[in-house]
Order: sequence, then C-alpha cells, then structure tokens
Amino acid sequence: MKTATRTAVRIAIQGEAGSFSHEATRRLLPGCQIVPCARSAEVFDRLERGSVAGAVIPIENSLAGSVAEHFDLLLTRKVFIERELRLRIVHNLIAAPGVKRADLRRAFSHPVALEQCRDFFARNSRIQPLPFYDTAGSVKHVIETGLRDAAGVAGSQAARVYKGRILAAGIEDDKRNFTRFFLLRKTRRVLPGADKTSIAFSVKNVAGALFKALAVFALRDISLTKIESRPRRGRPWEYVFYVDFLRGDDEPARNALRHLGEVADLVKVLGIYPAA
Amino acid sequence: MKTATRTAVRIAIQGEAGSFSHEATRRLLPGCQIVPCARSAEVFDRLERGSVAGAVIPIENSLAGSVAEHFDLLLTRKVFIERELRLRIVHNLIAAPGVKRADLRRAFSHPVALEQCRDFFARNSRIQPLPFYDTAGSVKHVIETGLRDAAGVAGSQAARVYKGRILAAGIEDDKRNFTRFFLLRKTRRVLPGADKTSIAFSVKNVAGALFKALAVFALRDISLTKIESRPRRGRPWEYVFYVDFLRGDDEPARNALRHLGEVADLVKVLGIYPAA
Repeated sequence: MKTATRTAVRIAIQGEAGSFSHEATRRLLPGCQIVPCARSAEVFDRLERGSVAGAVIPIENSLAGSVAEHFDLLLTRKVFIERELRLRIVHNLIAAPGVKRADLRRAFSHPVALEQCRDFFARNSRIQPLPFYDTAGSVKHVIETGLRDAAGVAGSQAARVYKGRILAAGIEDDKRNFTRFFLLRKTRRVLPGADKTSIAFSVKNVAGALFKALAVFALRDISLTKIESRPRRGRPWEYVFYVDFLRGDDEPARNALRHLGEVADLVKVLGIYPAA
Repeated sequence: MKTATRTAVRIAIQGEAGSFSHEATRRLLPGCQIVPCARSAEVFDRLERGSVAGAVIPIENSLAGSVAEHFDLLLTRKVFIERELRLRIVHNLIAAPGVKRADLRRAFSHPVALEQCRDFFARNSRIQPLPFYDTAGSVKHVIETGLRDAAGVAGSQAARVYKGRILAAGIEDDKRNFTRFFLLRKTRRVLPGADKTSIAFSVKNVAGALFKALAVFALRDISLTKIESRPRRGRPWEYVFYVDFLRGDDEPARNALRHLGEVADLVKVLGIYPAA
C-alpha cells in the first residue's frame, strides 16, 4: 500500500475530494492521487512549481457557461493543455450506510445542484431541499455527523470517497448538463491523434482586427468550435479572445497561427490535444 | 404607506432580498418594490406574464464570467433590454446592532465571497471564515438568530434589508470586481441616447459563416465590445453568438443587421440601450 501511494501520480484539483473535478480526474488518470486545493491559483502554483504532475480544471459547463478565472489563468501561467474531457453532471442522493430512502426528510447540497433536481423534489415532497455550500461537502457532512434522516446531493465520486450509499441516482432534471475539463501539464506535450487546438489572442481595435484575425482561419477552411471575448485586465478597450479550432499541429494550423501573429498583439497556444 | 406600496413599480430579481441584484435594482429604479424569485426562469415567467413591470438580472462578472443561463433565456423569451448597469462588487462585514468588531470570531458567507476577501481574513486571523450558501442569506442568518460573535459578508444592501451594522466596508481584495446587470422589459423601448446594441445570431458552418457575419460590422466600421459563442441547445454543430456593438438604432446599425440576416440563420435584437 505504501508503495502504491508513493508511486501514484499526484494531480491537483480545486475543491474537495469527491467533487466533479475529482470524478473527471479519475476518468482521465485512473489510479492517480488527487491533491485538493482551496483556490484555483493554488492549483496552477503547484503545477508550475512541479509539486504535482498535472492538474484537472473545469473550463465550461453547458448550463452555467465558462469559468472565466480559469481562462485568465491559462493565459498568464506557463502550463499546457494535454487532454480534454466532457463529463456529464449526474446528481445522486447519497446518505450514510443503513439509512433508507423512506427515512429521509432533508437533502443538503449546493443551491445550484438542488435547483437542477427540482422535478425530483417536486415528486418527493417529503424530502426538503436545504442549501449547503458544496455538493461533495454535503455528503461529507451528513455522513460524518451520522444524520439518519438526511442525505447529500452530489456526484457518485462523493459516495466513494465518504463511504455513502446512493439511494437515488441521476436525479437531475436536464440530462444535457455537461462540464468540460482540461488536464494540464507543466510542459508542452502533443498526444498522438491531437486534432484540436485552443489559443488565446488579443487585438486592439475590435471591429476590424477581430475580422482580420478570423480571416486567418476562414481563408484556410479551419473550423472554429468556440470563440469567446474577455476584457484584458487593466487595459481598457483591449480584448482577449479564446478560440478552439479543429486542427492539430499540422501545416495549415501552423500557417494560420503565423498569419494570426501578423494581425494580433499577442498569440498564445494553450494546448493541442485530441478532441473529446 | 398603503398607497406607496400600491403604486411602487414591481421588479423581479433572482435570489434573496439584500443581494447584489437587489442593490443593482435600487440603483436602476430607486423606490421600486423587488419581487424575489427562487429561479431565473421564474423571473422571466413573471415578466412575460406582466405580473411585474420589469426584471433585473446579472449577465456577466469581471472575475466569474458570463451567466450562461441568462443568455439562453434572453434568446428564447420575449423580453427586451432597456438599460445596463455596471455594479462594483463591494463586500462588507455585517453584524447585528450592538456587536463590536472585537467580539467577532466567525464570518459566514458564500465561499466565492470569502475567497474574494482572503487578505482581510489573513490580516484578521481571529475571525474564522465559514461557508454559507448565500451572501445576503448569511447576514439574515446572523441577525435573525441573534449571534453575538458572528458576522455575514455581503453587499451593503443586505445591511439595509436585515437592519445590520457594517463593521468593515470594502473588504474585498480585488477592486476590479464588477457585475453587469440588465434591466429587462416585456415590450421594446429604446431610451434617448441609446448607443449600444446586444444581439444574438446563429450560423451553421462556423469557419466561414462567422467570418461573413462579422464582416457586416467590420465593413461599416462598427465596434464590437463583446462576442461569445454558445452551442445551440439540441442542435449539434450549430452555435449561437452573442455580440454587443456600439451603435444605437441608426442607419448603419439597421443596414448591418439587414446584411447579417442574409448570412445568419437567426438574428434577434436583444436590446438597444445607453452604454453604461
């Protein structure tokens, strides 16, 4: 056991054990050891320092949108995206072992998670949804305090970590709730089959300059799958654009990026990786 | 008093009284009566039904990014943006009347708010930050339960609503934390001086079509201040783009929108309003 722990790859995540980031990490790197961090900046600090072998961060959710802070950190830190993962967000009702569903009167979770399970609570009006600051944390709470009439609502990883029992699985209303995660490394590595690139670039005069910037892709028939603008911190009227396009590290992509360098003030390749 | 209540304009917000949405509403429409709603969809339902005269919603935050759900609702619901407001997010330590700062040992708030006040808690290590599900709700909690050693961390509106005292103001680390709000109405109204337009449009083949779509603005020297893509729900490989541009309801803007109609599958003007 000691050897297994010593040799396990250490991966930093933001948030508690049992979170959806933990679940994503388990799928990307089975058997790794997670290093929970309170803040996102700490995740990037650890990765840049080399105290972890990688980091897994959520970048956007299909209902909630982009995690702006993580885009900002990708722009400013020396890290590289190696893989992406789309994880379906599945909420479960999780209680201490021995507790039966008929015993439940309360369910704790983050308000956003409870909100995503409205139909379940409408059908099960005996169980009152109560706000808690975190999904995985709610499971930890009901199990550690030995509550017999309460459950937490969280991903299945929380049941694994805190040794809870899933009393109802997949209780979310909308099955199209996905979160996209990135596996980050300190050094650039392009995996075989990499066919997608994430970049950031900045331009000054948005009207004309963005048009010219997008021309470099349109003229080469390169498809974009995402574009998003963010104001550049401390530089009014300058914008950073985050773009994903469907090419790996090939000739047309390199030409497009060289051409982009002519029209943009700053171009950063955030990662080249296989599309999920 | 009865007359005042009867004639006060009713404005729907998502979340509790005392929240930052409440604060934004008070600035946009002083003296109005807020109608707190549990869900964002309910805010839009009430507005479309006419049971409220308007709605105030957050649309993006400078640190946290866009509120994707609100963009989706703007696209699908029959509402119109009449005004925008940029509100600086100021966090305050708020306790029950009579409680002194030296008495404090705990401070409750939403984890994101606590995280934004890290330096304050580092300097005041006597006060332990504790997670709560909501900022305004934490103030309500400490005051209603009469805690003498605890404060909540929230906007100043929470002190007004729950009759708390601000023991430390502006305790957030980053003063560049802004949230942009929209005032929505059921019917289209363009205020005098309106010089900014928000639109949504969708295109199929993103590589070429987005390029053509942006040409309609670039060819007329119209400046964009925001662009963001979102996958179109239930239609794989189709995207909706949200764009803000700096023109009101004038000839070049109308020409650009007519031209955009030729290259996009769907164009919706979300609002024309004075830039904040």
